[in-house]
Amino acid sequence: MPDALTEPALRDALATLPEWRLEDDALRRDLRFPDFLAAFSFLGAVAMLAERLGHHPEIHNVYRDVTITLKTHDAGDRVTALDVDLATAIDRHLARRDP
Amino acid sequence: MPDALTEPALRDALATLPEWRLEDDALRRDLRFPDFLAAFSFLGAVAMLAERLGHHPEIHNVYRDVTITLKTHDAGDRVTALDVDLATAIDRHLARRDP
Repeated sequence: MPDALTEPALRDALATLPEWRLEDDALRRDLRFPDFLAAFSFLGAVAMLAERLGHHPEIHNVYRDVTITLKTHDAGDRVTALDVDLATAIDRHLARRDP
Repeated sequence: MPDALTEPALRDALATLPEWRLEDDALRRDLRFPDFLAAFSFLGAVAMLAERLGHHPEIHNVYRDVTITLKTHDAGDRVTALDVDLATAIDRHLARRDP
């Protein structure tokens, strides 16, 4: 079972994830896309990354706006390395898409 | 621009949509699937129905749980016939999938 990150580890992780914020004890990133098709295509990629990593995000989508929230249920809904890995994978996917 | 449904029209619509409730002036349905893969596959179908109808839902997903919220931004975030049509299309899709 994953451990919740310590305060210093969490601070280090956030330094590598400038697009993410800590909110309600979770990592959270808001994204806006040109339209629903682009937003949902992104969510499809997030879904595949989640299945690959065996760790799943909370997804909120309204038309072209998406919010991804990451925390680990098995660690008392705190942030663990699993969340940092998924956030990193999502950022890498977006960086590849938008060179 | 679509008009918000009148109170009687909304009541009639809800009578045809027993799985949906009126909450925060919107149609809302909660669904639980066996796992994330099943939940996200459903969301893919919802996305395609939304594109077909030109009307888009609010989507919330946590692992195998999905909440769909329907209201019409252009009608002051109230329920219109567009929402009833999308709710009906989603129910039909689920009925075909689970005979």
